[in-house]
Amino acid sequence: MARVSRPPVAAILAAGSELLLLGRADTNSPYIAGHLQRHGIAVAFTSVVTDEHDDLVAALRHALSRADLVVCTGGLGPTDDDRTRDVVAEVLGLTLHEDAAVVTAIRERFGRRGLTMPEINRRQAMVPAGGVVVPNTRGTAPGLWIRTGDQAVLLLPGPPREMMPMLEEALRAHVAPRFGGGVAVQRSVVLAGRSESWVDEKAQPIYGPWRDEPVPITTTILASLGSVELHLSAYGPDGGAIAARLDAAQAALVEVFGDDVVNTDGTSLEASVGGMLRTRGWTIAAAESCTGGLLTTRLTDVPGSSAYLDRSVVSYSNASKEALLGVPPALLQAHGAVSEPVAAAMADGLRARSGVTVTVAVTGIAGPDGGTPEKPVGLVCFAVSGPAGTEARTSRFTGDRAIIRALAATTALDLVRRYVRRSAA
Amino acid sequence: MARVSRPPVAAILAAGSELLLLGRADTNSPYIAGHLQRHGIAVAFTSVVTDEHDDLVAALRHALSRADLVVCTGGLGPTDDDRTRDVVAEVLGLTLHEDAAVVTAIRERFGRRGLTMPEINRRQAMVPAGGVVVPNTRGTAPGLWIRTGDQAVLLLPGPPREMMPMLEEALRAHVAPRFGGGVAVQRSVVLAGRSESWVDEKAQPIYGPWRDEPVPITTTILASLGSVELHLSAYGPDGGAIAARLDAAQAALVEVFGDDVVNTDGTSLEASVGGMLRTRGWTIAAAESCTGGLLTTRLTDVPGSSAYLDRSVVSYSNASKEALLGVPPALLQAHGAVSEPVAAAMADGLRARSGVTVTVAVTGIAGPDGGTPEKPVGLVCFAVSGPAGTEARTSRFTGDRAIIRALAATTALDLVRRYVRRSAA
Repeated sequence: MARVSRPPVAAILAAGSELLLLGRADTNSPYIAGHLQRHGIAVAFTSVVTDEHDDLVAALRHALSRADLVVCTGGLGPTDDDRTRDVVAEVLGLTLHEDAAVVTAIRERFGRRGLTMPEINRRQAMVPAGGVVVPNTRGTAPGLWIRTGDQAVLLLPGPPREMMPMLEEALRAHVAPRFGGGVAVQRSVVLAGRSESWVDEKAQPIYGPWRDEPVPITTTILASLGSVELHLSAYGPDGGAIAARLDAAQAALVEVFGDDVVNTDGTSLEASVGGMLRTRGWTIAAAESCTGGLLTTRLTDVPGSSAYLDRSVVSYSNASKEALLGVPPALLQAHGAVSEPVAAAMADGLRARSGVTVTVAVTGIAGPDGGTPEKPVGLVCFAVSGPAGTEARTSRFTGDRAIIRALAATTALDLVRRYVRRSAA
Repeated sequence: MARVSRPPVAAILAAGSELLLLGRADTNSPYIAGHLQRHGIAVAFTSVVTDEHDDLVAALRHALSRADLVVCTGGLGPTDDDRTRDVVAEVLGLTLHEDAAVVTAIRERFGRRGLTMPEINRRQAMVPAGGVVVPNTRGTAPGLWIRTGDQAVLLLPGPPREMMPMLEEALRAHVAPRFGGGVAVQRSVVLAGRSESWVDEKAQPIYGPWRDEPVPITTTILASLGSVELHLSAYGPDGGAIAARLDAAQAALVEVFGDDVVNTDGTSLEASVGGMLRTRGWTIAAAESCTGGLLTTRLTDVPGSSAYLDRSVVSYSNASKEALLGVPPALLQAHGAVSEPVAAAMADGLRARSGVTVTVAVTGIAGPDGGTPEKPVGLVCFAVSGPAGTEARTSRFTGDRAIIRALAATTALDLVRRYVRRSAA
């Protein structure tokens, strides 16, 4: 089915009743989809299916009717309800034989832990005729690569930490040589502090015409809790030319959006803020009320953040705002805890006490309770204090408690970004 | 296809190229799967599919070949690439007609914002012959319930906040009356502080025989970052009898696991800790180093947590451990920041300064850098200080930075839970 005129198409199956029974998101399939797309392979669909024989057979038949490549995760364990290997052999009409090298590898794996291989693990050494083993360095279940006519099936184990390096190896050794006819290139521009519709309206006149170019650029806009991402992608035989075209397209968007651009490398807002602080040799501290630690959690999600984050304070009570941040009781009485003067006093107080370069303060009403007609749920005040003075502002967010907290944390990070950005590096 | 002898079967489709292109997890399908299962409807598979006509047609045909009920989300917007409505009509062989009441509702929705309905939104008022509209109170795209022979198709919009209340309404008005032949009952027991294999070994002899009872109980064990969940479910015509049997089964597990049981209502560890603090009228404060705010974020995720959480301190630097928590510099020099004596001093210092009932402290090495042969990445020290004295302990976690931080936060919450549990309510 694979032709040069279109990207090869994949379908991704995740076998596992537990995913369906417990309402957990399937994280393997989006991960695999991203990797296939970077190799120029389109993804028609992903599916989570039970471990039952009939369901698996139907899912695999359907996938083979729609795709050049089928990638399955899960169901390669040693027990009776691990059926993926058997079902693939059945559907493709292949006999299974025991692979002596795989038995040895599994036996040695148990041996290194001073254990004897249980007999049931022999099932994991069964290989369909013509199948190639993809070694598993982190578990007992080997992967399998099986060509069938113009199509291929790749089987990988379900645990992500086993699956991920095996996918890497299978892409290099098997998938790219077979299906990597063209190259897919992707670029992104991450923005913050603007709504999706504002960004879309401003971007449409720029990227509209790109769709009709000889190598069309596909654009996708995605808003997620306070940031907006523009994704550009194109596919074709000449990777260098496509990359150059996308670089120019990305630069055009960066030019138009200016200060609203967080980064063009797809990293997180907090990583971008961390990089800017590092470059300038600045340190930071946060004073949080309604975000309850979430702002600092995001700052410290970044490896190496101890180089610039000195401390943070979560001051839920008025007493703690006075004791830890030096907010004057009179100010709290006059304006209330959720006010720009209190946010500014929190940021200034923390900066005076910690000696860091820049501080950020958040105080607001995350709900569901605590709102009043004057100060409704979703009202959040921010302040940033640093060498260029203190700046305060107020936002009003809509959504539930989790959404309001997430939007407030993102807004606080973006205010720091804009403040630091205005200071020469 | 629906028979009383087996639960009715559903398939869930999510239409959206953006889900596949950007590697985002499909959160709608697991949410819908959980709701269907609570109504006794089994889920054969979920699938994420592109917006392309041919892919959608193939996905819907396959779903109808495998399921009694097909639920689709997404693709109900007003633009050309919103194709779900048209594809369903095509596959089921139904004509579409404009529903005057829907046009009026959409027009009024725009009108309330002082806007005129764009002509393209008329597409959202197209209803297949025999289809019933499921009203959307939070957006313009109505849902549709379509019976076809013994089967049915339910279409819902993609944005979760629109979809969720509409699913609720569709289950009540259409799905349960048509497919709710039996009742599925579920129970859970949430444990913390134990490994999955430890729990499984102890639980197997108890719940093994349940599978062979006249009404078999299905058991699932799930470990997620420091807590272990045991899920029990059974299906049959007599909901009362099944519930009584599951209550007894749940009680047997609670008896065996004792202090390790966090709750039996499926709420979070942090909500359980919050409930225990509330009951006793206790207040809490946290001193965090390697968790960087994550422990406090989890405590404050719980609505109403300001009733018991007074403050928290994230002390990344030694200077802040001295200034905010009163940790003696000599102690830091003698033992290092990651040590039980320093954890205890953090907890005691914060308790003395804040006046709360109980404090918890975490100090460790989350990585990827900062580890040494004596104190490797993953080493985390904890302390709890309260009316019953101060307790410290050390854990060694494996995983990446995010996993170590999450395990450390869960362990800290569980240590608080055990400390508070030992104090009479």
